Amino acid sequence: MSEMPEDVRTALERHLIEYCYAVDGLQGVEPLLALFTDDAVADFSAIGLPAMKGRDEIGAFYRAVFADMTHHFHFISNFRPDGWDANGDGGGGVAAMTAYVIGMGAAKDGSSITVQVKYRMECVQQGGAWKCRHYAITPMMPMPGSLAEVHGSR
Amino acid sequence: MSEMPEDVRTALERHLIEYCYAVDGLQGVEPLLALFTDDAVADFSAIGLPAMKGRDEIGAFYRAVFADMTHHFHFISNFRPDGWDANGDGGGGVAAMTAYVIGMGAAKDGSSITVQVKYRMECVQQGGAWKCRHYAITPMMPMPGSLAEVHGSR
Amino acid sequence: MSEMPEDVRTALERHLIEYCYAVDGLQGVEPLLALFTDDAVADFSAIGLPAMKGRDEIGAFYRAVFADMTHHFHFISNFRPDGWDANGDGGGGVAAMTAYVIGMGAAKDGSSITVQVKYRMECVQQGGAWKCRHYAITPMMPMPGSLAEVHGSR
Repeated sequence: MSEMPEDVRTALERHLIEYCYAVDGLQGVEPLLALFTDDAVADFSAIGLPAMKGRDEIGAFYRAVFADMTHHFHFISNFRPDGWDANGDGGGGVAAMTAYVIGMGAAKDGSSITVQVKYRMECVQQGGAWKCRHYAITPMMPMPGSLAEVHGSR
Repeated sequence: MSEMPEDVRTALERHLIEYCYAVDGLQGVEPLLALFTDDAVADFSAIGLPAMKGRDEIGAFYRAVFADMTHHFHFISNFRPDGWDANGDGGGGVAAMTAYVIGMGAAKDGSSITVQVKYRMECVQQGGAWKCRHYAITPMMPMPGSLAEVHGSR
Repeated sequence: MSEMPEDVRTALERHLIEYCYAVDGLQGVEPLLALFTDDAVADFSAIGLPAMKGRDEIGAFYRAVFADMTHHFHFISNFRPDGWDANGDGGGGVAAMTAYVIGMGAAKDGSSITVQVKYRMECVQQGGAWKCRHYAITPMMPMPGSLAEVHGSR
């Protein structure tokens, strides 16, 4: 790939951090959905959770998660560009970035969970802001058996 | 808020990292206190620890902590501006930043502890360097019951 | 020390992140060895592992580790310059950076391990790219007794 411009790189790093704050705020899914395109894909199948298409499906997933959880903590680092096409998406550019995440959650039933995963977000510009059009999570360490129990059986 | 200038943002990120190194060095509180204003507030009440005002109180707290601990590890990420007033503090500017922290400690009595928290530091410029005038810690995950036992009963 | 230039600082941060991705890929040691000089020293003695000199010894160590492990996760943050000599290494400059790392591994025998450590990499420029010539790991929290068992008895 050609090298991702510094300003794009910075924008994507901050986009991923915003996502973590939105997931951890547990205050409603609107701030979180605003980070995605209308037709975004969120593919969590590699960690035993659903693959979803579109803001409606993604919103329904997170609404159910938020209803179950009392605490969220998504700690992100190891940012690394994973693709840059300056001419993609009709000339606006397509940028992909990976990062490592330690994700923790505590549920209303008293259970808690910790995972070590990698995020990959592929983003495009819409109205002057970067939005994620494809989001995938892959495991870095063995996944706890209870993840699907906590988040997935919907 | 108006957008925090990039150089201020970078300075605050590094200030928070310096704080972690100072807390983890366990070598005396002077390098740590040098990061705060004389009248700084350190409010740890949200995690069951004291709220302190002024370098003397903050120094006494950390001296007691350092005397008890053999190891410290404060891992910081998820930096995010949380306020910027270019005209504040008599024109020097007031900048606030939040970050996530995984904090770990091992004590001389053999006990150890891990917390997942959010830091917020509000900083001003003094003598050409940023200093923290208000520092607050809030919990991100349920706090272990032993935190006050380890750090708080002073 | 004189202050490390921003571009050098950024290059070293990314070098350390590349190292984490190379260690965690578990796909062969060549991408990892490409980050070091031919005569690089990797001193892991402070955490009970070998001190090695040269790509051959470093490569042999990691080949053995990779053969044993099914998962790796090296989460890095708290980057901080730790030395800059613009005139060093014949005028190319010598730059050192520290960072904190949460390192995790899962082995084929079903065991797993987590450590909290500090990395220090001292780097020089070769052929337009930064290469690590001295890499040291020091413990931040008490080390698990099983580390030498997992990685060190070679």
